[in-house]
Amino acid sequence: MNVLPANVQKLIQYLQKIPGLGPKSAARIAMFLLKSPENYTKELGNIIESLNDDIVYCDKCFNISTSNPCDICSSEERDKSIICVVEDFLDVLAFENGTDFNGLYHVLGGVISPVNGVGPEDITIKQLIARLDDSIEEVIIATNPNIEGEATAMYIKEEIDQIASNKINVTRLARGLPNGADLEYADKNTLKKSFEGRTNF
Amino acid sequence: MNVLPANVQKLIQYLQKIPGLGPKSAARIAMFLLKSPENYTKELGNIIESLNDDIVYCDKCFNISTSNPCDICSSEERDKSIICVVEDFLDVLAFENGTDFNGLYHVLGGVISPVNGVGPEDITIKQLIARLDDSIEEVIIATNPNIEGEATAMYIKEEIDQIASNKINVTRLARGLPNGADLEYADKNTLKKSFEGRTNF
Repeated sequence: MNVLPANVQKLIQYLQKIPGLGPKSAARIAMFLLKSPENYTKELGNIIESLNDDIVYCDKCFNISTSNPCDICSSEERDKSIICVVEDFLDVLAFENGTDFNGLYHVLGGVISPVNGVGPEDITIKQLIARLDDSIEEVIIATNPNIEGEATAMYIKEEIDQIASNKINVTRLARGLPNGADLEYADKNTLKKSFEGRTNF
Repeated sequence: MNVLPANVQKLIQYLQKIPGLGPKSAARIAMFLLKSPENYTKELGNIIESLNDDIVYCDKCFNISTSNPCDICSSEERDKSIICVVEDFLDVLAFENGTDFNGLYHVLGGVISPVNGVGPEDITIKQLIARLDDSIEEVIIATNPNIEGEATAMYIKEEIDQIASNKINVTRLARGLPNGADLEYADKNTLKKSFEGRTNF
């Protein structure tokens, strides 16, 4: 006997494909949506349905956008001599909201990850290298500070050195203790990096 | 400068209204949807958009369904002398999947919760009482074993006693140690209930 209507069952199945949602949380979300006002579900459904219709990827930085080139790449106010290389568009959002960075971005669309079958040619490294003309003075490699992010950063650094050694300043984000951290609970690597990178008071 | 396209921003806003999803998890889900194949997002959007169109609530048990009365209430094979009272339709799903229960259900649509402004008249207690004719032999009150669920169970028990004392057997689910539990970590109330309800070996 089907306890749930077919479309609710299908909704729960579809929601389970979202990373981080198991059968129980998918069912809870389905229940929330069923109890929600109709204009909320109608609009949410509509946005998801037409999500990819208006979205384009910027040909320069590969960020998602509604125009190509995107607002950042086509802005006259941004410093076009510096490129910040990030893994995905959420990182762009984080930098835009959390820092005063006023240069350009380059969205890799992932990291090199042999375990997941992602090689250097599967992300936009080649396109990054192609962007590096004489106007570029600095490339900040801002991949995540984990094994895959580090490996990707190393790979990119080597690629840049091969085409433009010394001409372009390749930098990376500072490593050390995060704000509000407790020394006692900091992991060994973080402590080591914070020692190595200590600055004058 | 808008870093994200308007519809992605709106999607993140809408997703944040789902209980348990904060700004970061909403953004992660939005990114997942953006990277998903178009037929997945189209279909998921479509289901959510038309979610309430086909759904009706069964007039008898108040479970969601596509027909009224629902499949369970209209089935010839179910035992119509026993009603299991649950908080919401996910509980019906849990019982159907996890037990051999073959009676009918009654979905309260919530619990009595003065803190959240939910009184007895806001859930389907009156409708439950109205269902209790001579054919009903047992009512299993299967609200959740927490303060609000217990209070709701007590209220329902008293209401049933007033109209049909002794004629209807009002029961509740056994309390005790859950399967795989560790005595050492069991809370006091659970231990107490498991002692009180001990059975012959």
